[in-house]
Amino acid sequence: MVGPSRFMTLLSVFELGIVDLLRRTPGLTAAQLGKAVGAKPDAVEQLLLLLVKEGFLAHDESTGAYTLDALADVPETDLRRARAYMNLIKVTALRQLFYLTESVRTGTTVGLRELYGAEGTLYDAVADHGDLRDAWSKLMDTVTAHIDPWFFGNIDIPSGAQVLDLAGNTGLGAIHTYRHKASPGLKVTTFDLPEKENEALENFRAHGMSEHLSFIGGNVFDEIPQGFDVVLIKHFLDMFDKDDVLTILRGVNKALKAGGQVNILVPVYPENIKDTDNYNVDFFPAFFIGATMGQGGPQKLSTYRSWLEDSGFEVTKAITKDSAEIPPDVIPVQAILSATKAA
Amino acid sequence: MVGPSRFMTLLSVFELGIVDLLRRTPGLTAAQLGKAVGAKPDAVEQLLLLLVKEGFLAHDESTGAYTLDALADVPETDLRRARAYMNLIKVTALRQLFYLTESVRTGTTVGLRELYGAEGTLYDAVADHGDLRDAWSKLMDTVTAHIDPWFFGNIDIPSGAQVLDLAGNTGLGAIHTYRHKASPGLKVTTFDLPEKENEALENFRAHGMSEHLSFIGGNVFDEIPQGFDVVLIKHFLDMFDKDDVLTILRGVNKALKAGGQVNILVPVYPENIKDTDNYNVDFFPAFFIGATMGQGGPQKLSTYRSWLEDSGFEVTKAITKDSAEIPPDVIPVQAILSATKAA
Repeated sequence: MVGPSRFMTLLSVFELGIVDLLRRTPGLTAAQLGKAVGAKPDAVEQLLLLLVKEGFLAHDESTGAYTLDALADVPETDLRRARAYMNLIKVTALRQLFYLTESVRTGTTVGLRELYGAEGTLYDAVADHGDLRDAWSKLMDTVTAHIDPWFFGNIDIPSGAQVLDLAGNTGLGAIHTYRHKASPGLKVTTFDLPEKENEALENFRAHGMSEHLSFIGGNVFDEIPQGFDVVLIKHFLDMFDKDDVLTILRGVNKALKAGGQVNILVPVYPENIKDTDNYNVDFFPAFFIGATMGQGGPQKLSTYRSWLEDSGFEVTKAITKDSAEIPPDVIPVQAILSATKAA
Repeated sequence: MVGPSRFMTLLSVFELGIVDLLRRTPGLTAAQLGKAVGAKPDAVEQLLLLLVKEGFLAHDESTGAYTLDALADVPETDLRRARAYMNLIKVTALRQLFYLTESVRTGTTVGLRELYGAEGTLYDAVADHGDLRDAWSKLMDTVTAHIDPWFFGNIDIPSGAQVLDLAGNTGLGAIHTYRHKASPGLKVTTFDLPEKENEALENFRAHGMSEHLSFIGGNVFDEIPQGFDVVLIKHFLDMFDKDDVLTILRGVNKALKAGGQVNILVPVYPENIKDTDNYNVDFFPAFFIGATMGQGGPQKLSTYRSWLEDSGFEVTKAITKDSAEIPPDVIPVQAILSATKAA
């Protein structure tokens, strides 16, 4: 019950700049903080109670001075990442989830329609709404920087392979693929909606990779281009319900040459749903159904494995990132599945 | 971070009617539940993961059957109260808290303005907006039913006293006072804004208490009527910042005859702010500043005590309700302060 208020109280203290202020000038009182951030001291005092309770800040009741407590030990980069997550949740989900029940019933993002007049998914809406786009892209940049090295360190891309990056957006995945896996003759093709083409080609040029990277426009539910050695599917399968995931996997199977391989990066639920070292279950169902797609959500690793087998693949690798390696402020627990097109 | 999504996932499962369905018909699958509530089974399955994780529901993976687990043992009345709280938070706070930082800066309820075009406080807005009013009144009815017997059981109202119920709204507090504390000659006067008068008098008549109860219109910040033996202040002081609370308490002091007594019911923060058996700190600052008043929030019992002393009172009683007596779904931990007008 206190989830929404706890969330916004913490984020608001960051938004007001109070944490930054106390880092530069420890020992400020509510009166001094209020003056600095343009708020009444009474309100500052009320908001900071929760941070004192949680041990993020310390408060000397005799002098009224606030100092950083646990937050003093958190590196700036971690705080930036945590704030990117919190801002994403605030902007793309907090108000939208008010309409979760209607989203479940209609399979549409009712919150986006009510708040932004936007039909379609969050991924459509970011094109038209700067606040959604900023929140989304800041988060995705930090996620990609964090998870791509792990993904590329755990998959095999044969020398000179023809690679398709499925739903590769504006080409960042292709660029990362080339950067991590360059080999003589390696070609990476980004496949996404035609309207992404210009920006993708621009990105390839800006990175001096136009010779190795290309773009094909289309829709994964119509027809996926064929003749590839490797297909990559990153941050994508969890957006869809089972029937659509199977359609995609069967299309990918057709897109691969015999013996070709698909490599999937996707968040997964723990096999024992009651595991508490994983917050995917606490976050993704509401986020996908209520805030981004009107459908979808991750599955267990074993579910994705069986769906791959049902789609003509033999699974060669299925690993989940160790929770211990994931910073405490990062929600998704990611997995990699690699599978070969069965003969 | 997962607070908002956890909150709405749980509430949405109730709103869809899934808990009621499983109570009547244990063992339904996601497909059956989806059909019954008008949602795709995939979405039902996603939402119910969290309830299985938390042990509210059980899920038999071999048959797909869901049954009530911990929720089976929760009495209907407790569930109704919990839902009233959750609905209050959803309707009056979830979306509004998006604007918490602006509310802190301006001291106004920015969320109410943005979402409802409403100037003023939540208590003003409920007059014009049915959804806010329903959520608010359902919750207040359960809170009052729960807490009033404790309040009246712990305060003394001398026989035949002249009692003023400060900010007594439309007279329910006066009615409860007469019901719990009737004595020959007891008179209770509701003091609130003049526009509440008609409904209050109507309520007095409907309860057959017109002879003993009366109404005076006015504003606590202008002048409080004088000459009373007892003043009651319930659910009110926590709505204001310190300067306003002191103004009210000084006005109440003037309203009392020499030796008269004020009795206050108010939620309080624990003396040790890090106590974890109390969620007032997690909820009220954001709720009052972001969703209801643009200011205010409870204080510690010791703070209210010292403010009473600063306002010309001698505190005769200061007790906090034992957390163990409060149902786990009830957020406010209430206190009673009684104080006598110092000579």
